[in-house]
Amino acid sequence: MDYFSSLDEFRSFIADLPGANFLAQTAAIDRNAQLTKPQGALGDLENLAIWYASWIGNGRPSLVAPQVIIFAGNHGIAATGVSAFPPEVTQQMVYNFQAGGAAINQICNVLGAKMDVISLDLERPTQDFTQGPAMSENDLLVALQTGWRAVDPAADLFVAGEMGIGNTTSAAAIVAALYGGGAKAWVGRGTGIDDGALTLKRSVVDAGLVRHKDVLGDPLAILQTLGGREIAAMVGAIASARLHRIPVLLDGFICASSAAVLQAINPSALDHTQAGHVSAEGAHAKLLSKLGKKPILSVGLRLGEGSGGALAIGVLKAAVACLSGMATFAEADVSGA
Amino acid sequence: MDYFSSLDEFRSFIADLPGANFLAQTAAIDRNAQLTKPQGALGDLENLAIWYASWIGNGRPSLVAPQVIIFAGNHGIAATGVSAFPPEVTQQMVYNFQAGGAAINQICNVLGAKMDVISLDLERPTQDFTQGPAMSENDLLVALQTGWRAVDPAADLFVAGEMGIGNTTSAAAIVAALYGGGAKAWVGRGTGIDDGALTLKRSVVDAGLVRHKDVLGDPLAILQTLGGREIAAMVGAIASARLHRIPVLLDGFICASSAAVLQAINPSALDHTQAGHVSAEGAHAKLLSKLGKKPILSVGLRLGEGSGGALAIGVLKAAVACLSGMATFAEADVSGA
Repeated sequence: MDYFSSLDEFRSFIADLPGANFLAQTAAIDRNAQLTKPQGALGDLENLAIWYASWIGNGRPSLVAPQVIIFAGNHGIAATGVSAFPPEVTQQMVYNFQAGGAAINQICNVLGAKMDVISLDLERPTQDFTQGPAMSENDLLVALQTGWRAVDPAADLFVAGEMGIGNTTSAAAIVAALYGGGAKAWVGRGTGIDDGALTLKRSVVDAGLVRHKDVLGDPLAILQTLGGREIAAMVGAIASARLHRIPVLLDGFICASSAAVLQAINPSALDHTQAGHVSAEGAHAKLLSKLGKKPILSVGLRLGEGSGGALAIGVLKAAVACLSGMATFAEADVSGA
Repeated sequence: MDYFSSLDEFRSFIADLPGANFLAQTAAIDRNAQLTKPQGALGDLENLAIWYASWIGNGRPSLVAPQVIIFAGNHGIAATGVSAFPPEVTQQMVYNFQAGGAAINQICNVLGAKMDVISLDLERPTQDFTQGPAMSENDLLVALQTGWRAVDPAADLFVAGEMGIGNTTSAAAIVAALYGGGAKAWVGRGTGIDDGALTLKRSVVDAGLVRHKDVLGDPLAILQTLGGREIAAMVGAIASARLHRIPVLLDGFICASSAAVLQAINPSALDHTQAGHVSAEGAHAKLLSKLGKKPILSVGLRLGEGSGGALAIGVLKAAVACLSGMATFAEADVSGA
């Protein structure tokens, strides 16, 4: 049996989430204060390590089994020409992920992460959301469940990634529905579209917002009507990680749109997540600000695939290793300040 | 025989440095354009990988043998109370590095770097530079040679790090001598000094600038009169890496002061280097701007030990792995834009 068998059950779970481990957090804060460095000299690494400890439930944790999942979905909206690439690239890139030829494969290899690829009904794109709801309620439920089940309960870190030609359009529509401002505030150039395609993309998003205006008060209805299967799967996966108390690194704009749906249901729903990076996709920085997340990295990525989340694994591993592996002043017989 | 046996020979070497490998650079640029990603979607990683290829001399390089060296030196100036920590902490931290208990040990372990520690006459601190030249000409020469010899010619990346209670004072004096602005423009809180110590630190730096004003037109004389042995050793090491065409990741403010000495002798002397990070030490961002370097990371570190340079190894390894390991559009049969 699945953990939830209806959207209402999923909604109930998100409304009442497990919290961090306070004892582990306290132990990590206490240990951090004794390590052989000036107070605060490891900057963001100290906060990251304490955050990690609090969710993994161990004041002196290790980080050895990160899992990166790329969820792939196809979008009816892609047929309108909102992307620089044709829709068949989604499937082609899935083969590339499976063959080890994509950027995310190299990043995972270098940083010691397991990588899984989950295709969601690629032969059955979502409906063009200017014409009707992108997904049925059952489509949404299945995508959420697929994401939920994909997270390995034995992982000690989860990175949510995606692939789907057209999905920055879907993500922009979702966040515009959540935060207002219309297409102008949220639509960017995605894979690198020209001015003409950008104008089209904005009009498509605004048309979607008008088409579904009656249901946009409900975050899951927004996800159903404007989203994609991979975006919904990331929602399910991030929620699943919360149940297992697996810390999460978010990737770019599309991943953040999934996170935004969760936060709209419950303001504390993202406490077990950090933003791996801020991307070059136009509105990602603004979206992170809405989510209250400070990105770990800012290196101009705009690729998706989980690449920015995975790249931040190196920083987080180092942060955790410092917390758990460094000597204290007493152990090393180093004089204090 | 050492590569240089006088300061003049060292100066001559820096004045006429080997350049990057243009063929390797061209090959890397060409390959990068064919990889299965939208053009430019890997952001800074693309430029980093091409830079790395151009210096290592291979258009499809690997990065498997990074070397981190921590140079340790003691400063006469530390006796004046410019640091939050007592001078004996330099030696104590060297023992901690050797025992594996410091932050840099954990970061090197996580990111697969070899770490070496070089103590430079710790029992013989430099002279308080408000009283006379920090080093003799021979002290400087020996420190430069020590740094030079410490770089492993078989390494494929070098990270310059340091430890030395009082050395942000020395570094601030060096960059104030190079760029002007006096202590006010360059002195920060180092390991975390209070307002009283900060005032003292500024007065010490300004006193040093006045004391040695007659020789501050010559970058090596600045290094000799205001520097420390570990700062000079980093100058020698960064130069040595250039001869071996080993790409370099710079660490924080003190490391950047070493780099600034080289750049003052030859504006192209840092072309084989990148800034691993921008630290929380007050003037580091401004100093990087003077050096024309955009930092890879910005995570609020202010520790030294090579920590920020070493942390950036993860990003650089990922960048190089993407360039060399990704499939091309043709290889993966992925449709183009």
